[in-house]
Amino acid sequence: MNTPADRIELFSYWRSSAAYRVRIGLNLKGLEHQITPVHLVRDGGQQHSEGYAALNPQELVPTLVHGDLVLHQSMAILEYLDEVFPEPPLLPDDAPGRARVRALAQLVACDLHPLNNLRVMQFFSDTWNVPQTEREDWTRHWMQVGFDAMERLLVESVDTGRFCHGDTPTLADCCLVPQLFNARRFNVDLGPYPTLVRIDEACLALPAFDAARPENQVDCAG
Amino acid sequence: MNTPADRIELFSYWRSSAAYRVRIGLNLKGLEHQITPVHLVRDGGQQHSEGYAALNPQELVPTLVHGDLVLHQSMAILEYLDEVFPEPPLLPDDAPGRARVRALAQLVACDLHPLNNLRVMQFFSDTWNVPQTEREDWTRHWMQVGFDAMERLLVESVDTGRFCHGDTPTLADCCLVPQLFNARRFNVDLGPYPTLVRIDEACLALPAFDAARPENQVDCAG
Repeated sequence: MNTPADRIELFSYWRSSAAYRVRIGLNLKGLEHQITPVHLVRDGGQQHSEGYAALNPQELVPTLVHGDLVLHQSMAILEYLDEVFPEPPLLPDDAPGRARVRALAQLVACDLHPLNNLRVMQFFSDTWNVPQTEREDWTRHWMQVGFDAMERLLVESVDTGRFCHGDTPTLADCCLVPQLFNARRFNVDLGPYPTLVRIDEACLALPAFDAARPENQVDCAG
Repeated sequence: MNTPADRIELFSYWRSSAAYRVRIGLNLKGLEHQITPVHLVRDGGQQHSEGYAALNPQELVPTLVHGDLVLHQSMAILEYLDEVFPEPPLLPDDAPGRARVRALAQLVACDLHPLNNLRVMQFFSDTWNVPQTEREDWTRHWMQVGFDAMERLLVESVDTGRFCHGDTPTLADCCLVPQLFNARRFNVDLGPYPTLVRIDEACLALPAFDAARPENQVDCAG
């Protein structure tokens, strides 16, 4: 679909849920791309290397390079992809629908995931000496708070379909699926969230989501 | 500008930086609106009341009601306002520019502010008994990490102008200004961030930003 001049390179880490979101988006759009792994732990964290920090001063993944353009922030990247490669769309065509999808995506990307990512866990262990069990309690706590709200928002809306919004995947699904991967990793009880689980299952049945799974990445540690 | 059928009501708290973002956006668009204060501490937190939780299951501010529509998440709300009331625009008209503005906004809204908001501080004090000085160290730490990256991104780009992107305010400025208010509240040294400070000053010289300041809200505790 994209031409050689439009070369797309994604700096990714197999287990990063922000990178996972963009992998899903690239696959849904059918865009050929190269994945360059950035190991977030090895070498003191390759995201802190001088070369990568020049590309992304936040020293976080993902970074997407499209031609000469360097893009940061998973949701900004997904919106960009949706504008430049509009088919199939990741956002509905009405303003209220787009607001709903963005709000669901941001529930995960702003209020849930940032509290649980690697650098936060490292702060707790290295600076505050918080024991692992308490760090994991923290992680589960914020996931549950976020999932409680998301389940309710999905159950109570007629706009919820096979996916978070209607019957085609959107930005919200790109955020939900990686977050459920994280939840399973931390043994969050998903019993109270039947709608999240049902949508996750519907997503992962699609090849675009399946190919983006952490366990299907070249840099997966197994 | 908006008609009575388009009545806009913002559920806000004077010191919430997410609500502050939306207040700026409403003012920049010149949209008449009613502000309904939600006190985040009083009554055990009015955002946890049954009535408000029905409106916003995340039990967070802001919530924007526009006619029959209930909208959550500050950035989703700002994007909605920009689509429905396009003038003046909060996003540039080119896809790379929009991606840059969204990434700067998300640097604040996804990676910085969520780590420092009230519910996180309450978790530290109530569940982990973290002393106030350490809680404030945490807050300053994440602001400095975020500001280091944002200053560099702004200094290194030719797209930075009087404001974060060019010479008119965007979504990025709506996020930056409330975050600098928070930084001052927590005595973050802003010396290393001359560009952030310069842009903040340019913003606050505009009546739309000035009227949105926490200290200019009806519910300001002074």
